[in-house]
Amino acid sequence: KVIWTVLVTILGHASSLPVGEDALCTAEELAKYRIIFTGKWSQTAFPKQYPLYRPPAQWSSLLGVTHSSDYSMWKKNEYASNGVRDFAEKGEAWALMKEIEEAGEKIQSVHGIFSAPAISSGTGQTSTELEVHPRHPLVSFVVRIVPSPDWFVGIDSLNLCEGDHWMDEVSVDLFPYDAGTDSGFTFSSPNFATIPQDTVTEITCSSPSHPANSFYYPKLKILPPIAQVTMVKLKKSQLGLSAPFINLPAKSNEIIDTVS
Amino acid sequence: KVIWTVLVTILGHASSLPVGEDALCTAEELAKYRIIFTGKWSQTAFPKQYPLYRPPAQWSSLLGVTHSSDYSMWKKNEYASNGVRDFAEKGEAWALMKEIEEAGEKIQSVHGIFSAPAISSGTGQTSTELEVHPRHPLVSFVVRIVPSPDWFVGIDSLNLCEGDHWMDEVSVDLFPYDAGTDSGFTFSSPNFATIPQDTVTEITCSSPSHPANSFYYPKLKILPPIAQVTMVKLKKSQLGLSAPFINLPAKSNEIIDTVS
Repeated sequence: KVIWTVLVTILGHASSLPVGEDALCTAEELAKYRIIFTGKWSQTAFPKQYPLYRPPAQWSSLLGVTHSSDYSMWKKNEYASNGVRDFAEKGEAWALMKEIEEAGEKIQSVHGIFSAPAISSGTGQTSTELEVHPRHPLVSFVVRIVPSPDWFVGIDSLNLCEGDHWMDEVSVDLFPYDAGTDSGFTFSSPNFATIPQDTVTEITCSSPSHPANSFYYPKLKILPPIAQVTMVKLKKSQLGLSAPFINLPAKSNEIIDTVS
Repeated sequence: KVIWTVLVTILGHASSLPVGEDALCTAEELAKYRIIFTGKWSQTAFPKQYPLYRPPAQWSSLLGVTHSSDYSMWKKNEYASNGVRDFAEKGEAWALMKEIEEAGEKIQSVHGIFSAPAISSGTGQTSTELEVHPRHPLVSFVVRIVPSPDWFVGIDSLNLCEGDHWMDEVSVDLFPYDAGTDSGFTFSSPNFATIPQDTVTEITCSSPSHPANSFYYPKLKILPPIAQVTMVKLKKSQLGLSAPFINLPAKSNEIIDTVS
């Protein structure tokens, strides 16, 4: 047997991954993956305005979906749905879950929904399982950056199918996005609706080009990744009763943040 | 066919439900349920010290497990595990997920883990699916009360199997518990570890019997339920592709809280 291992690390362009939306997936069966989200939002890596109190830097629940190219959870340079707005601004998942449900019922573009628990610090991990289907091989998810006006990280339509195979492992660095619905510049900006709504844009070390922007680091070329996601295909022998419990990695995020 | 519908509403004693830990479950197959958690923590129902800011009243992610009687996630009057302590105090799920994983690997007492997204207000809903197995028919979960010292709501070992049938619907009112690991009296008390650790206790309107306790309402006989959980068995026709998306109820929690 040939073992396929593909490691994808795209810097700053998670949403422009080679999706191959029209490529036919001829894999024969469902595949299950463990998805592990790792927060890398440390004060060392992101010293500017790093939130220490009320609330300190943390990550919301992860909400994701496996789907076909007929569904899109969010897309760079397009307008966020009401569900994505609620989630990015407040971490409120209900409207987004309803949107996904409707896409599943009306156009059968959705295979499954998954969520993983929130992380109570900027550096930490959370994990769950997801299932992909040959007609629904794409993965999308969002995690809100807390605190923030409407900032999130996520994946848009990552294709886990490679022709007739499922990828064994995919790892993607994640960078912050602005949902375009709240005009705050900094992590702790008060709510201030963006009217008319703007599109989803990536936040970089130079854009928005304003010194007040919490991610504005004029001396950097690119931001360090603020998070990372890894999806590992579960072997058949790992499926069944104990499937959800295999391969939870040891906690590897004991980064000590020096309070400056 | 006989349709079995069992509606269980136990006031104040969710952890003393008729678990039947030794009753044999002779149901033939797996069963899938939609679990819907509804927060009822409104300022109207719980006016005392109701948290309005930094953070306002809200609920953490829901973390749950389906298991046999050989595993216990938490139990009234017993000591909380380190994982439950981390979750109840900080909403940090990783240690608890590892504990569940180990119980699944070592003594095969666990069938599956499930989580649902956090709720960003005191009144709201979240939902996910779970799967039970004849050898693992029990459901336990925890949701942290935010803000709070170490308070949570949850279910301990609710048996979804009734002899050779799976229950069609179960609904349980939820009341607050103290994990026994932090000595704070009020929602916003600073961290103050309880040494030695105390057992998990139910918080009632009269216990802890101290006027500073956020749930101390001496004129009440019992607290109103602070949350509710409903588990609805998914029909076979609802399984398969669109299973996760059936029966998400319309949001029914538009309670307007008057700020007094």
